[in-house]
Amino acid sequence: MKEILQKLVDGKISLQEAEKMLKTSHIDELEDFAKLDTARHLRTGIPEVIFAENKENDDLIKIILHCAHMGHVMVTRLNAERYALIRPELDSIKENGFNFEYNKKARILVIKNHEIEKNGKIGILTAGTSDIPVAEEAKITAEEMGCEVLTAYDAGVAGMHRLFPPLKRMLQEDIKVLIVVAGMEGALPSVVAGLVDVPVIGVPTSVGYGVGEGGFTALFAMLQSCAPGIAVVNIDNGFGAGVFAAKLTKQTFKD
Amino acid sequence: MKEILQKLVDGKISLQEAEKMLKTSHIDELEDFAKLDTARHLRTGIPEVIFAENKENDDLIKIILHCAHMGHVMVTRLNAERYALIRPELDSIKENGFNFEYNKKARILVIKNHEIEKNGKIGILTAGTSDIPVAEEAKITAEEMGCEVLTAYDAGVAGMHRLFPPLKRMLQEDIKVLIVVAGMEGALPSVVAGLVDVPVIGVPTSVGYGVGEGGFTALFAMLQSCAPGIAVVNIDNGFGAGVFAAKLTKQTFKD
Amino acid sequence: MKEILQKLVDGKISLQEAEKMLKTSHIDELEDFAKLDTARHLRTGIPEVIFAENKENDDLIKIILHCAHMGHVMVTRLNAERYALIRPELDSIKENGFNFEYNKKARILVIKNHEIEKNGKIGILTAGTSDIPVAEEAKITAEEMGCEVLTAYDAGVAGMHRLFPPLKRMLQEDIKVLIVVAGMEGALPSVVAGLVDVPVIGVPTSVGYGVGEGGFTALFAMLQSCAPGIAVVNIDNGFGAGVFAAKLTKQTFKD
Amino acid sequence: MKEILQKLVDGKISLQEAEKMLKTSHIDELEDFAKLDTARHLRTGIPEVIFAENKENDDLIKIILHCAHMGHVMVTRLNAERYALIRPELDSIKENGFNFEYNKKARILVIKNHEIEKNGKIGILTAGTSDIPVAEEAKITAEEMGCEVLTAYDAGVAGMHRLFPPLKRMLQEDIKVLIVVAGMEGALPSVVAGLVDVPVIGVPTSVGYGVGEGGFTALFAMLQSCAPGIAVVNIDNGFGAGVFAAKLTKQTFKD
Amino acid sequence: MKEILQKLVDGKISLQEAEKMLKTSHIDELEDFAKLDTARHLRTGIPEVIFAENKENDDLIKIILHCAHMGHVMVTRLNAERYALIRPELDSIKENGFNFEYNKKARILVIKNHEIEKNGKIGILTAGTSDIPVAEEAKITAEEMGCEVLTAYDAGVAGMHRLFPPLKRMLQEDIKVLIVVAGMEGALPSVVAGLVDVPVIGVPTSVGYGVGEGGFTALFAMLQSCAPGIAVVNIDNGFGAGVFAAKLTKQTFKD
Amino acid sequence: MKEILQKLVDGKISLQEAEKMLKTSHIDELEDFAKLDTARHLRTGIPEVIFAENKENDDLIKIILHCAHMGHVMVTRLNAERYALIRPELDSIKENGFNFEYNKKARILVIKNHEIEKNGKIGILTAGTSDIPVAEEAKITAEEMGCEVLTAYDAGVAGMHRLFPPLKRMLQEDIKVLIVVAGMEGALPSVVAGLVDVPVIGVPTSVGYGVGEGGFTALFAMLQSCAPGIAVVNIDNGFGAGVFAAKLTKQTFKD
Amino acid sequence: MKEILQKLVDGKISLQEAEKMLKTSHIDELEDFAKLDTARHLRTGIPEVIFAENKENDDLIKIILHCAHMGHVMVTRLNAERYALIRPELDSIKENGFNFEYNKKARILVIKNHEIEKNGKIGILTAGTSDIPVAEEAKITAEEMGCEVLTAYDAGVAGMHRLFPPLKRMLQEDIKVLIVVAGMEGALPSVVAGLVDVPVIGVPTSVGYGVGEGGFTALFAMLQSCAPGIAVVNIDNGFGAGVFAAKLTKQTFKD
Amino acid sequence: MKEILQKLVDGKISLQEAEKMLKTSHIDELEDFAKLDTARHLRTGIPEVIFAENKENDDLIKIILHCAHMGHVMVTRLNAERYALIRPELDSIKENGFNFEYNKKARILVIKNHEIEKNGKIGILTAGTSDIPVAEEAKITAEEMGCEVLTAYDAGVAGMHRLFPPLKRMLQEDIKVLIVVAGMEGALPSVVAGLVDVPVIGVPTSVGYGVGEGGFTALFAMLQSCAPGIAVVNIDNGFGAGVFAAKLTKQTFKD
Repeated sequence: MKEILQKLVDGKISLQEAEKMLKTSHIDELEDFAKLDTARHLRTGIPEVIFAENKENDDLIKIILHCAHMGHVMVTRLNAERYALIRPELDSIKENGFNFEYNKKARILVIKNHEIEKNGKIGILTAGTSDIPVAEEAKITAEEMGCEVLTAYDAGVAGMHRLFPPLKRMLQEDIKVLIVVAGMEGALPSVVAGLVDVPVIGVPTSVGYGVGEGGFTALFAMLQSCAPGIAVVNIDNGFGAGVFAAKLTKQTFKD
Repeated sequence: MKEILQKLVDGKISLQEAEKMLKTSHIDELEDFAKLDTARHLRTGIPEVIFAENKENDDLIKIILHCAHMGHVMVTRLNAERYALIRPELDSIKENGFNFEYNKKARILVIKNHEIEKNGKIGILTAGTSDIPVAEEAKITAEEMGCEVLTAYDAGVAGMHRLFPPLKRMLQEDIKVLIVVAGMEGALPSVVAGLVDVPVIGVPTSVGYGVGEGGFTALFAMLQSCAPGIAVVNIDNGFGAGVFAAKLTKQTFKD
Repeated sequence: MKEILQKLVDGKISLQEAEKMLKTSHIDELEDFAKLDTARHLRTGIPEVIFAENKENDDLIKIILHCAHMGHVMVTRLNAERYALIRPELDSIKENGFNFEYNKKARILVIKNHEIEKNGKIGILTAGTSDIPVAEEAKITAEEMGCEVLTAYDAGVAGMHRLFPPLKRMLQEDIKVLIVVAGMEGALPSVVAGLVDVPVIGVPTSVGYGVGEGGFTALFAMLQSCAPGIAVVNIDNGFGAGVFAAKLTKQTFKD
Repeated sequence: MKEILQKLVDGKISLQEAEKMLKTSHIDELEDFAKLDTARHLRTGIPEVIFAENKENDDLIKIILHCAHMGHVMVTRLNAERYALIRPELDSIKENGFNFEYNKKARILVIKNHEIEKNGKIGILTAGTSDIPVAEEAKITAEEMGCEVLTAYDAGVAGMHRLFPPLKRMLQEDIKVLIVVAGMEGALPSVVAGLVDVPVIGVPTSVGYGVGEGGFTALFAMLQSCAPGIAVVNIDNGFGAGVFAAKLTKQTFKD
Repeated sequence: MKEILQKLVDGKISLQEAEKMLKTSHIDELEDFAKLDTARHLRTGIPEVIFAENKENDDLIKIILHCAHMGHVMVTRLNAERYALIRPELDSIKENGFNFEYNKKARILVIKNHEIEKNGKIGILTAGTSDIPVAEEAKITAEEMGCEVLTAYDAGVAGMHRLFPPLKRMLQEDIKVLIVVAGMEGALPSVVAGLVDVPVIGVPTSVGYGVGEGGFTALFAMLQSCAPGIAVVNIDNGFGAGVFAAKLTKQTFKD
Repeated sequence: MKEILQKLVDGKISLQEAEKMLKTSHIDELEDFAKLDTARHLRTGIPEVIFAENKENDDLIKIILHCAHMGHVMVTRLNAERYALIRPELDSIKENGFNFEYNKKARILVIKNHEIEKNGKIGILTAGTSDIPVAEEAKITAEEMGCEVLTAYDAGVAGMHRLFPPLKRMLQEDIKVLIVVAGMEGALPSVVAGLVDVPVIGVPTSVGYGVGEGGFTALFAMLQSCAPGIAVVNIDNGFGAGVFAAKLTKQTFKD
Repeated sequence: MKEILQKLVDGKISLQEAEKMLKTSHIDELEDFAKLDTARHLRTGIPEVIFAENKENDDLIKIILHCAHMGHVMVTRLNAERYALIRPELDSIKENGFNFEYNKKARILVIKNHEIEKNGKIGILTAGTSDIPVAEEAKITAEEMGCEVLTAYDAGVAGMHRLFPPLKRMLQEDIKVLIVVAGMEGALPSVVAGLVDVPVIGVPTSVGYGVGEGGFTALFAMLQSCAPGIAVVNIDNGFGAGVFAAKLTKQTFKD
Repeated sequence: MKEILQKLVDGKISLQEAEKMLKTSHIDELEDFAKLDTARHLRTGIPEVIFAENKENDDLIKIILHCAHMGHVMVTRLNAERYALIRPELDSIKENGFNFEYNKKARILVIKNHEIEKNGKIGILTAGTSDIPVAEEAKITAEEMGCEVLTAYDAGVAGMHRLFPPLKRMLQEDIKVLIVVAGMEGALPSVVAGLVDVPVIGVPTSVGYGVGEGGFTALFAMLQSCAPGIAVVNIDNGFGAGVFAAKLTKQTFKD
C-alpha cells in the first residue's frame, strides 16, 4: 500500500488510479493465496470430498472426473441407485488404474490409486441398528484419512449390558477418541462419557418419531449432556465426525 | 363413600342427608353444584389443591380460607417469601385446630386436621441436586394422597454407580411405581426403565442452559426414550407426577 | 480393585500391568452383567419386540428369525405391504409350530407358540376414527403382555354424549388404567381425567393439519392438562402406552 | 390526471414537471381518502383506543389529552401503578366534565362524557381464575362498544359440572356470541362449541408453564379444535375478542 | 340416586352393590344426554360432515352410506382421484333419489335430497389465485349451511387497486361477515379490517415458501394484526371459516 | 412514462389516450382497474411475472396467454418437466413473433418481443455449487429488469482463496450491489460484507441438512451478521434478490 | 511458496524448516493485510461503531477513549441511564474539542470533531409509535454516514390514509431508498412496496405480544412479502438498515 | 446367578427367596462398581467440579466444604456478587493451606493445594469482546486440567485481518486443538477450520439479538459448517469445551 501511495506522491499515477488500486489492493494479495490451493490436500489431510446430494447427475460426473487426478476421492451421500446410474460414466478413470470401493450402507464411493497408511485407532459405537449407516459413513471417512477403526453396533442404554464388553475392548486397544452415534433420545454419549476418559464425539441421527423426528432431540440431549467431555456434530453427519476424529488422531502422532 | 352408606344403614343419617352427601355431577341439579364439590375429594382422592401461581395474594387468601373447612388443603407453587406474607391472614384457620406444614423446597403448604393413612410405596429419584425441588413437590403430593415415599437424589448418568444402591433398595421395598426427575439431557428415566420392571414416570425439569433451557430437551428425551414403559408429565410438574403415582398405587390396593 | 493393588504391592504384577487392569476393571464386572440378558424377558415381562421402521428388509428378516426361538415375538410398525413381502421368508418358523397373527390396523405381527394368560383389565378410548390405528397398537401390545382390553373408539369432545356410555361400562368392569388416544387439539384426556379416578395415559396422535400437523398440539395439550393424573407418551406411541399400562396392571396383581 | 396532461399540452408545465406530478398523482387522490378519517369513529363503532404498552409515559399522556376531545377513549394494557402515576396529569380532562372509569383487572381506563347505549348480549366464560383479567378486558371493551355482557368465570373442563349452569343461563338470555377464555391446554372452547350453536370466539391466555408457557398450547388447541364454529384471536387479546364480538352483535341489529 | 339409597336402606341391595351403583351414577344421567344426539343436526345447523383425510377408503364408504339417510351430507378434503375411486360404491344412494355435487377445487362432495334455503350474505376474498381452493371450501360450506356467498379472488396487497371494487360491491350488498383468505405474509385481513366495519374472519393458507412454508407466517400475521376485529381459523381451514360465518349469519336472522 | 408524454406533446396521441395509458391506482375509478394493470409494468419496472408453483397447469397456461400481449413476461419456478408439458399450448404466442427463452437451472421462462436495454452492473456470488439454481434465478431476473450481471459460483468460506479473484474483478467492474447466495451456515455474506463497500444482499438457500435443513440457519446467520450493510431476502428467493438489486441499480441511473 | 521450496532445493534451509515455513506461509501474507486496517474507515464509509450492549462499563469506556481519536465515533444501544453513568469518564475527549450528541430514543451517542457532509436522501416510515426508537436508530446512523433523512411515523395499515401524504412527499423529494419499520404483523413494507418503485428495506421490530412477541411474525411477514423488491434486516436492527441505506445512497453518487 | 439357582435346586433357599435375590442380583454387582468412585478423579483427570447455578447458597457451601479435601476443586458459574457472599463461609478451607483463585470474567473459583503440571498447548479465539467470558471459562478449565493456553480475543470475520497474526502464532506454537468462541452468526469456526488443520471446537455464545437471541443461530451455523473438522458444545459452554480440549491433549501425551 505504501508503494501505491508513494507513486501517487511522486506523480507517477493519478489520484483516480491510486484510488482504484488501493480499493482492490487487499484483494491482490490473494492471488498468491490462491496458490495455496494445490497444497490443500496436504494441509488438511482430507481426500478430495464430493457431497453428492443436491447436485445433478451431469454435474456430479463432471466433478468426479475432474477430481480423480488428485489420486484420492471420496463421494459421500451417494445412494446405491444413483451409483449404479453414474457408474458407467466413470469407466475412463477405472481404466487409468484407479480402484473403486463402494460402501452401500455408508453411501460412500472411494476412488484411489494407492493404499492409505493407518496410524492410531478410534472407536465407533451405535445405540441401535438404525444408526449403522451414519456410523459406517464415519468409519469409511476416518479410514480414508488414516485411522484404524473399531466398531460396536446396537449397544444402547435400553440394554446397557451389551455396551460394556466392546467398550472394554476399545479401551484396551488404546483408542484415542470415541465416536458415539445415537438417535431417539440420544442418551448413549452421556452414559459413555461418564465411564471413559477418552474424548467422546456425539453424532445424533435422525432416527426417531414424534418429538424425536428429525434428530433434534438426540442432538440437544448430547449438547446438554451432564457428563463433560462431549463435542457434537450435525445430525447424521458421520462424515464430519470421521474427519474430526482423524484430525484428532493425527495430532497424537505429530511429534 | 362406604362410611356414608354405613351411616345410612345404621340409621345415623336420613336418606335425604345421605343423598346430599353423595352428590354427583348432574347437569340438571345445577344449584347444588357447590355440594358436588365436597364429593370431589372422595371421588378423585385428591386433597383440595390450590395452585398459587398466577393468583393475586388477596384472591389466594380468600380461596384458602374458603377451602380450609374441607379438612385437607394443599397450596402448591407457594414460595417462602409469599408464604411469610400471607401467613398472618390465615390465623383463623390455625386457631380452629388445623395443622400447617410448609415445605420450602417443594413450595407446598399443607393444611389439615387429621393424619393421612398410608398404603403402598413409590420411589422418587433425581438426576441432580437442582432437580430436588420438583422431586419434593412430587413427594409431598404423593404422601398427602396416601403413599409412602422412598427417595434418592443426585443419582444421574454422569456418575451411574451412585444410582444402583438406592435402586436396589427401592425394588426390595417393593415400590409400585418409580418417579424419575431429571433436567439437562433427561437420560436417567431411559437408563432406569432399562433396569427395572416397575412403571417409570418421567418428570423433566427446567434445569439446563443453552439448548436445554426451559426443559424441552429433557422432556423430549423422555418421550422419545428407547426403553418402553415410561410415561411423562409436564416440565417441573412434580405435583402431576405425585397425583398420577398415587392414583396408580390406589389401584393396587383396591381389591 | 484391592486385589489388583495388593498384587502390585506384592510385586506379582508390574505397574504397567496394574494400570491397564485398573483402567478396565469397572468394565470387567459387566461381563457378569451380560448374563442377565437371558433373564430380560422374565424381568420386564415384555415379549421380544422388533421395531420394523428404519430397518431394511434383509436385516428385519434376520432379526425375526433370530428372535423367534424366544417363543414370543412382536414386530411393530410393519405395514401390510411390507408384511406381504417378508412373509414368505418366515416360513421356517411357521413350520416349527409357531402361530402368526398379523393386525393390519395396528401394523403388528405377533409370532408365538403359546397362549398369553390374561390378568387385569385396561380401557382404551379414541377421540376420532383416525386415531384407531394407534389405539390398536396399544391394544395388541397390552394383550400380548397379559391384559384384558376394553375399547371404545370415536368418542371425542365434539360429541361428548358418545363418551359417557363406554366410560361407565369400563368403570363397572373395574379397569385399572385408561389409555386415551387423541389427535387434533388433544382435549379428551383432560375431560376424561376430570370424570374418573383411574390413572389416565394420554397418547397424542399425528392426526391434524395446520397448527396441529405432526401431533405437537395434542401432545402439549395433554402435558399441560388442568386435570391432574395424566401421564403422556410420545406422539403415535401406542406401543409405549400399551407397555406402560401392562406394567401398571402387573403391579396390581403382584401381591 | 387529465388536468396535468392538459397543462402539458398547453405548455404551462414542462415535460419534467409533468412526469413528477404524474408520478405522485395516485397518492394525491388519497388526500380525499383521509377525510374518511373523521368518520372512522362512526364507521367502525370503536371508541378511540390507546394501547399503553410500549409507549413512554410522556407520550402516553400527550396522546390521551389529544384524543379526549373525541368524547370516548379507552386506554388498554394500563396497569394500576402506571395509572396512579399518570392520573394527575389528566386532571384538565376531568375538569372538562369527562368521567374516568378504571378497571384494575382489565387494566383499562375509560374516559367518556356520555353513556353508551347497549344492544344485544354476549357471553364470556373462563376456564380458570387466572384467565379473569383477559376476560375482563374483553368485557369492558364489548360494553364500551354497546354490548350487554354475561360472565361466568372458573368453569373449566377439570370440573365440568360448574360449566353447565351458566351456559344454560346464557343460552336462555339469547346471547349472540360466546367468548371463551382459557389458558393451559385450552380445551374449553372445543367442549363448549360441541354443546351450543352460537359462534364461539376462543381467547387463549398465557397462563401455563412448561410446554404451556406463553399460551401457544392453548392457542393451537383452539385453532385445531375438532368442533367446528370456533374462531380465535391472539394470546391474551381480550380487547380483540371484545371488538370482534361487538362487531358481530352490531350486524344482528343493523336491519 | 335416591332410589339406590332407598334400596340399600330396604336391604334390597348390599352395601357393595350400592357403592358400585353410586360410583357410576353420574354417568347414568348421560344416557339422557345422548338423546340430544338426534337433535344435533337441528341444533347446530351443520349438515353431517365427514372429513375424508386420514380415513381409509373402505371406512369412508361405510360412513357415507351410513350418514346418507340424514338427508344432507358433506364429504370434505376428498380429492378428485379419490372421489373417482369411491364413486361407484355410492350408487345405491344415488338410486334412492339423492343428488351428488362434487366441487373439485373445494374437494367437497355434497349429497342431499332437498334444496338448501338461503338467508343472509357473506363475502369471501382471496389474496392470490393459489388461495382459491381454500376459499371454495369455505364457500360450499357456507352455502350448504344457508348463506348466499359473494366472492372476489386474487385481490392481494401487492396490487391493492384490485381490492377496492369488489369490497365496495360486497358492502353495498350488505354482507354480514367477510372471510379473507391469504397465504404468504397474510397481510390482506389487516388491510381489509382497517377499511370495513363488518367482522373479518382470517383464513391463513399454506401457500408460501421459505419462512412462509406451512402457513404459520400468514397465521401469526393475522392473529397479531394491528387492526382490531379479526378472528382467525386454522391454516387452510376453509371449512371452519364457512361454519363460523354461517353460525354468525344465523344469529342475525334469529329474531 | 416520458415517451408517452412526449407523444402527447408531439400530438401523436390524444389527451384521452394519454390518460388511458397512464392509469394510476385510484379507488374511485374501479371499473378501469384492468387498464391500470397495463401501467404496472411502467410503474415498477418489473416485467409481468407469473409464479408457476401452486398453480394448476390449465390455470397457468391461461394466465400466460393472457399476459403475453404485455410484451415481456417471466414465468418463475417452472421446472423443465412442467415446461415441456405446457410448451405446446403456448404455440399461438410464438407464432405472433414472441421469443421464448427457457433457463433450466433458474427454472424461468422468459417470453418477450423486444430486447432489454442494460444499465449498471451487479455481482452475484454463491458459496457452493448447489446454490447455483437460486443464483441463476436472481441473474435472469436482474437481466430482464435491465442489469448487466457478473457471476462467480462456488466461492464459499471453506476455500476462501477462491473468493478473492472474482471479488476483485467485480469491484473493478464497478458493480453497484452484490448478491451473495449461500446455504449451510450462510457465512459468506458476512465475510464479503467485511471486505467490500458495496451493499450486500444475502440470499439464504435451503441447501443443508440436520440443523440446516430448510435454510433457516443460513437465513438467521445472514440477518444476525456482525458485518453491517447486509439486507436479506426469503430462503431460495433469487427472484426477490434480483428485483431488489435491479431497483437499486435503477436509482443510480435516475439522475 | 516457490522461494521456500527453491531454498530447500538449494540446501539453504532444512526440510523441517521448510515445512514449518510452508505451514504458516499463507498466514504470513496476511500481515500486510492487517495494514489495510487503518484504511477501513475510508473503505466502508462507516464511522467507528461501538455496540454497547453485552459490554461492561469499564470495557466500554476504554474502547470509546481508544476510538475517539478516529474523529468520528458512534456508540449504539446505549440507554440513557448508562450514558449518564459513563459520561463523566469521557470528559478528556470533550476537552479535546470533540462534540457529543446523545439521542435518547435512538440510544446512540455520537462523538465527532467535524460536520458530516450530506449527499442523497432516504425516507423512513414506521407503522406505529412504538417503532420510533428503531427508526431513530436508523435515522442517526444514516445521517452520520452522509444521508439526508425524511421521516414519517405512525403510518400503519390499520389507518392507511395516514400513509399516503408522507409517501407522496418522499417520492417528490426523490428519495433513493425507503426504510419501513414495523412490528406486530409487519404488513406495512408489503403495502408500500406495492405502491412505490424505490427499493424498500424492511425493519421488523420486537413490538408485539402473543404470537408476535419478539418480532418474528413481523420479520417473517416481510421476508415472505408478495410484493417483490423488499430486503430485510434483523429484528430491531435500525443500525443495520441505516448502514445499508447509506451504502446504497453512496452508490448513486459515485459516478 | 448360577449360584442362586443352585441353592434353589439344593433346597437351601425357597423359590420366593430365589426370586427376590435374582430380581436384585444385577444391582448387587454394582456395589463394587461404587468403589470405583474414589478413582474417578484419576480416571477422568477432571478436578472435582461444582456447577453453582441452580444451587442455593447453603447447599453450595456445604458441597464445597465437602469436596475441598479432594485437593482440587473448581466452582463454575459463580458470579462475583455471590462469591463475595459465600467467601467468608469457606475460611476453614483457606486456613488448611488451600489456595483460592477467583476469575471474575470466567466466573470460576479454583481451590487447590498444589500446582497443576502443564502438558501440551491449545488455542482459544473469540469473535468479539462479548464472547470473552465464555472463552475465559474454557481457558481456566483447560489450565486446571493441565493445558497451556494461548488466547486471541476479538478476531471475528467482520475484520478478518485481525484474525491472521494470532492464528499464525498459535500454529507455530504447535497447538493441538483450537477452541473458537463466537456469538452472533457464528461464522468464525467455519472460516478458521478452512485455514488450519488442527481440530476446531466451536463454542456458540448467547451474544446476539433478534434472530440471534439465545445463541441458536451461532450454534446451528457451527453444526452446519461447510468446513469439515468442527465439533461443537452447548451454547455458552466454555467449561465443556475446556474439558474436551484437555482430554484431547492428554491423548497426545499418553504414549
